[in-house]
Amino acid sequence: MLIVQKFGGSSVATLERIRNVAERALATQRAGQDVVVVVSAMAGETNRLIGLANALASEGEGQGDRASKGPYLASERAGDRAHERELDQLVSTGENVSAALLAMAIQNAGGRAISLVGHQIGLQTDGTYTNARILGFSHGRIRQELTAGKVVVCAGFQGLNAAGNITTLGRGGSDTSAVALAAALKADACEILTDVDGVYTTDPRVEPRARKIHRITYEEMLELASLGAKVLQIRSVEFAMKFGVPVHVRSSLNDSEGTWIVSEQKSLESAVVTGVALDRNEAKVTLTNVPDVPGTIASIFGALAGADIVVDMIIQNASRGGSTDVTFTVPENDLKKAVAGLRSLDLLPGAGPMEILSDPDICKISIVGVGMRTHAGVASKAFEILARENINIQMVSTSEIKVSVVVHERYGELALRALHAGFGLHEGPTSSAA
Amino acid sequence: MLIVQKFGGSSVATLERIRNVAERALATQRAGQDVVVVVSAMAGETNRLIGLANALASEGEGQGDRASKGPYLASERAGDRAHERELDQLVSTGENVSAALLAMAIQNAGGRAISLVGHQIGLQTDGTYTNARILGFSHGRIRQELTAGKVVVCAGFQGLNAAGNITTLGRGGSDTSAVALAAALKADACEILTDVDGVYTTDPRVEPRARKIHRITYEEMLELASLGAKVLQIRSVEFAMKFGVPVHVRSSLNDSEGTWIVSEQKSLESAVVTGVALDRNEAKVTLTNVPDVPGTIASIFGALAGADIVVDMIIQNASRGGSTDVTFTVPENDLKKAVAGLRSLDLLPGAGPMEILSDPDICKISIVGVGMRTHAGVASKAFEILARENINIQMVSTSEIKVSVVVHERYGELALRALHAGFGLHEGPTSSAA
Repeated sequence: MLIVQKFGGSSVATLERIRNVAERALATQRAGQDVVVVVSAMAGETNRLIGLANALASEGEGQGDRASKGPYLASERAGDRAHERELDQLVSTGENVSAALLAMAIQNAGGRAISLVGHQIGLQTDGTYTNARILGFSHGRIRQELTAGKVVVCAGFQGLNAAGNITTLGRGGSDTSAVALAAALKADACEILTDVDGVYTTDPRVEPRARKIHRITYEEMLELASLGAKVLQIRSVEFAMKFGVPVHVRSSLNDSEGTWIVSEQKSLESAVVTGVALDRNEAKVTLTNVPDVPGTIASIFGALAGADIVVDMIIQNASRGGSTDVTFTVPENDLKKAVAGLRSLDLLPGAGPMEILSDPDICKISIVGVGMRTHAGVASKAFEILARENINIQMVSTSEIKVSVVVHERYGELALRALHAGFGLHEGPTSSAA
Repeated sequence: MLIVQKFGGSSVATLERIRNVAERALATQRAGQDVVVVVSAMAGETNRLIGLANALASEGEGQGDRASKGPYLASERAGDRAHERELDQLVSTGENVSAALLAMAIQNAGGRAISLVGHQIGLQTDGTYTNARILGFSHGRIRQELTAGKVVVCAGFQGLNAAGNITTLGRGGSDTSAVALAAALKADACEILTDVDGVYTTDPRVEPRARKIHRITYEEMLELASLGAKVLQIRSVEFAMKFGVPVHVRSSLNDSEGTWIVSEQKSLESAVVTGVALDRNEAKVTLTNVPDVPGTIASIFGALAGADIVVDMIIQNASRGGSTDVTFTVPENDLKKAVAGLRSLDLLPGAGPMEILSDPDICKISIVGVGMRTHAGVASKAFEILARENINIQMVSTSEIKVSVVVHERYGELALRALHAGFGLHEGPTSSAA
């Protein structure tokens, strides 16, 4: 049996916590497992390092007279890519420090351990600095150290590109490292050890009767991103799904079972709805009097994409007399930028002016469950539940395993609780576990 | 032309200083040189990291009940070697951080730069963690980056052993890295940039008329270790001598020429004496009534070596009636340990008791110069100079290019000044330069 255990920055934030992690890894080994640990940088360390890089850059500003740049240097100015390479060389040291300290802590506790970093781990990536994609993995070194009876502690978040440069895997990279290692080593499980004890049917701060989900499919987890993002990075779930790695999200503070994220075949839960998520960070934009001619919609959303605004739900109403209405949601933080971008559009000279209505006071509620595929009427049941609470639905969007509705922000929590109860999620965990 | 420039921890202690180093490296490049920079960790960083490792170990003490070690783990307890490996993985990150920041600073100033660490540098060492020896160097990557017009910034202090583990080169390792890189790249010079402007004929704090030495041979520099140790590690001088690397010790704060450390052929100075060094950290031990039979001396110094005490000067007087006197010097800090070790010796049952006299109030003054090889009477001239000052000489030791005398500590500075003046070192730099 081989287990990959991933501990985040808060789990290794202090030496005392590192000692606890060491005990946990050793306990797992004593239980007869081969153990590979993946660690993040100590909490705050990555930000400290990025802060140094930023301060270095800003110190240099406004001092052009001191820099005395020759024309040669000015024309040969290195691009951002060179700078991003250095940023990766810099921030990856944070994980290296935690890995070495954890290996020492395991040794201090009487165990055998070795830390592996960048070139020793064998994680090959493409050349995209600060957000590299994993291309492959050569696990000779890890296998060798496991065979020697050691706990293998890998610095998370980093890989090596073909030229031998250090790359980092972007936000949540340590989760992705752990899943990738688990996939390549054909580990029996990838444990994500964190400060909560699993994934819940909804946010327990909003609905105290939320209960821990025992098993959830990769697809559901991806749709419940807003719940999962607090405990693990969604990108690692995509990776786990691709390679069929069972992921176990559990508490680093106790030995309770947490939430298993598995493929649909392995998930024996029969619940139609697995979880309910509330996203308060969206805003709604409605465009009226939009010329109903080919290319208009493309222009609108092209402009938003060009401004790096991620559009979520999109609804286009039927045309009325040559013009139409379009409604969509964007992240609330991007609302101003979106409206400004739309104002500057010149869609169809001669047509009446397009009207732009924006509303930040909305929220999105999603119910998710693979059971929806085989159960008809989930959407209509959701609408009924909300109607009983007199909640007006402003927008609807559905996928194979999800129904999302947009409602006024003030009804968000009420809607969430109503749907959570209405789909039977309040009930005890035994009722929906296998 | 290729220059290797080494900057120590104080030169990269702050972001502002890193910016200055960047300007210096760029100025060197603009002057038409290929530039390889070797950097230490930011001042204080190595100690911070070692402090974390030490705190981790001490936190673990006295908590055996919490550790719950099974018999398997107790018997498989990893040795110090595994721990030292982790220490090297840990502390090497300090240099990695400086290297990345310096590369960024060069980029911010309009230049092109790349930082290289551990596996990218190509410095191969043996497997002795925390104090590795350099075995070889593959400079493909550095050459490639230089050809691309970049300033190549290498993390100092570290190499890689055959198994791909990070090793560190021990105290002063960054100096040694720099000289090794210069040797392998056949650099035209290895510059050691520091906060003093060169090596002086003696310590300027003792003798204000000390003057900067323009050229000194490797051999002289090694003998003048107590002067040189303030500006560069002696181990790097041995390395430079072995490979004939011209080393230029100079200030990081200005462009003045500093001191060139070169082979004897390249040193055109004709001075008989190049420098005078004072070492106050020695103590004298005299053993009387030592049985004059084979093996006694070996027992005495074997005991001291076994206690890790480095003995410097040794004098044995002629035998008188079956016993003899032995006098030697040890580091003042080791005096108590030395005396205790000698007391416990049982040299010759039946012989009279050996008497141990110790004297911490001594100091050693050395005059050094390759010219001594061809100039007779240097030692006797030194004795005359000291006699004129009424300074009693307690011990004498000579090598091919050095005369050392032990005198009472209170006469140390007087003796130094007298010898400095007597051998003409007060005179202006032009008189002894080529």
